[in-house]
Amino acid sequence: MGAVPDGMSAPRAKPLFERIAIIGLGLIGSSIARAVRRTNAAAIIAASDAQPRVLARVRELGLADEISETAEEAARGADLVILCVPVGANADVARRIGPSLTRGAIVSDVGSVKAAVELAVAPHLPAGVHLVPAHPVAGTEQSGPDAGFVSLFLHRWCIITPPEGADPAAVERVREFWRALGSNVETMTAAHHDLVLAITSHLPHLIAYNIVGTAADLEEALRAEVIKFSAGGFRDFTRIAASDPTMWRDVFLYNKDAVLEMLGRFNEDLSALQRMIRRGDSDGLFELFTRTRAIRMGIVAVGQETAAPDFGRAREDAPQGA
Amino acid sequence: MGAVPDGMSAPRAKPLFERIAIIGLGLIGSSIARAVRRTNAAAIIAASDAQPRVLARVRELGLADEISETAEEAARGADLVILCVPVGANADVARRIGPSLTRGAIVSDVGSVKAAVELAVAPHLPAGVHLVPAHPVAGTEQSGPDAGFVSLFLHRWCIITPPEGADPAAVERVREFWRALGSNVETMTAAHHDLVLAITSHLPHLIAYNIVGTAADLEEALRAEVIKFSAGGFRDFTRIAASDPTMWRDVFLYNKDAVLEMLGRFNEDLSALQRMIRRGDSDGLFELFTRTRAIRMGIVAVGQETAAPDFGRAREDAPQGA
Repeated sequence: MGAVPDGMSAPRAKPLFERIAIIGLGLIGSSIARAVRRTNAAAIIAASDAQPRVLARVRELGLADEISETAEEAARGADLVILCVPVGANADVARRIGPSLTRGAIVSDVGSVKAAVELAVAPHLPAGVHLVPAHPVAGTEQSGPDAGFVSLFLHRWCIITPPEGADPAAVERVREFWRALGSNVETMTAAHHDLVLAITSHLPHLIAYNIVGTAADLEEALRAEVIKFSAGGFRDFTRIAASDPTMWRDVFLYNKDAVLEMLGRFNEDLSALQRMIRRGDSDGLFELFTRTRAIRMGIVAVGQETAAPDFGRAREDAPQGA
Repeated sequence: MGAVPDGMSAPRAKPLFERIAIIGLGLIGSSIARAVRRTNAAAIIAASDAQPRVLARVRELGLADEISETAEEAARGADLVILCVPVGANADVARRIGPSLTRGAIVSDVGSVKAAVELAVAPHLPAGVHLVPAHPVAGTEQSGPDAGFVSLFLHRWCIITPPEGADPAAVERVREFWRALGSNVETMTAAHHDLVLAITSHLPHLIAYNIVGTAADLEEALRAEVIKFSAGGFRDFTRIAASDPTMWRDVFLYNKDAVLEMLGRFNEDLSALQRMIRRGDSDGLFELFTRTRAIRMGIVAVGQETAAPDFGRAREDAPQGA
């Protein structure tokens, strides 16, 4: 077992949970498994995944103590079940595991949309089982059990969205769990989460997918040049446009209203910007481009971004930022 | 003098140019100065900048052999003059240096727009002086003489756009210069350059400036949360939206037609995507999000992007890509 990265819990003598069931071992689920093992946040890790090749890989990587072909089997007897599947799959998984759940168990998830998750999962849980949805705001553009790593959640925010009337002790246990994995924990309503994430995450993905799609539709010769000369800015967008298609399809289907609201604002602003360019409004452009610079400084200041130029991918002889 | 990074020319016994004049010592100009010094691509480096504090910093950093307060003085007797100023400033600089230029001298630039540069500069050059515009497709979001570094151009493309009837020997000397600095060199017409860069660089910057602007205009409380939870995707956009405002204002003013053309395509695609979300077109979203993934793989394959997840800014224990 490797060292625990600074900022994560030292391996616990007494685990927070006896048995954690992780349903879905993609980037997020497999990173949770790795971090739970490293910190001993749970005594037993049970895992299931709908795809046999994922389960085989989980076995090879030694990510779980028990590997089950069905979610219901993994969830049986667990005191914490975390659904790590695309948002659209939550209802079906909840329906299947409901009968296996023990009184006092906590069901959580990692979805990027929260109001829809509550609606999908809550009806399937028996009395005495606590639903405490969570969203670790962390990830990379890669997918699958090989893409995960221990420190994915370290210094990243995890947002907990307890339903009205949620059991405070259950909520606190989920908060403690994410703190053990190195996250900063924040609590808010599902509706507020969905609005904030629509602008910080969903709209950026939408725009990135769109511009990369526009490039993909160019005539063949021009498209080859776009790839060749992508260092001019375009390549930045291709990273998030390489994210998991199923996960992101579901985000847009299940957070439709907030996404369309933010897209509306974006479109209004883009029309104004287009007009400035067409009319040659030099002062207007300069003013906007100056204002946007300040936002990045704020993000670097709160530790959510590297100060190194070019995300640090610039050469080693580049200045490393303030 | 430090070692020459792999892929750049070893320090030349015989410099390519006797005297290079660099007009404007920002990120690009100062990186050229550093790389010329390291490779001995020119015997004497003369520098001028319109801002006294930049010149003072150039002196402190030892970036040039001769430091002049005026462009005309720096350019006098140079066999290569490189204009490294915002595109909109080129005409004025060319008008001022014209009378100082010697027959046989080459004037080049580094602007992100090329047709406009030719129109602005050519009329001011005396007979026997060669105009060979160039665009190194490289940079970071930082500005000024402290932001530059030796290997900025290494393995990046430099696009040369010779005007009709340009002297082939002069063009070849500029190509050789950029190869010495480690660049891959490509030649095309100014019009074609402006179209390709509109999609690979100008539109991405426009979109990034716009989305960061949309966020900047949110109500105060929401804006603070955007900064806090920016790791969900938004922070990627803030990098290029932190680029130099003067430079980018000029790009949009001087490549208006190609930018508006590409923006038109982007807007059509965005309307179609918006419609898919509103109508819940699950298959359409999945198909688009799958197609965009392939473009990034192409960029990584041609060596213009790191394969490491999250641009390599992810933790050291993350998998480092294929």
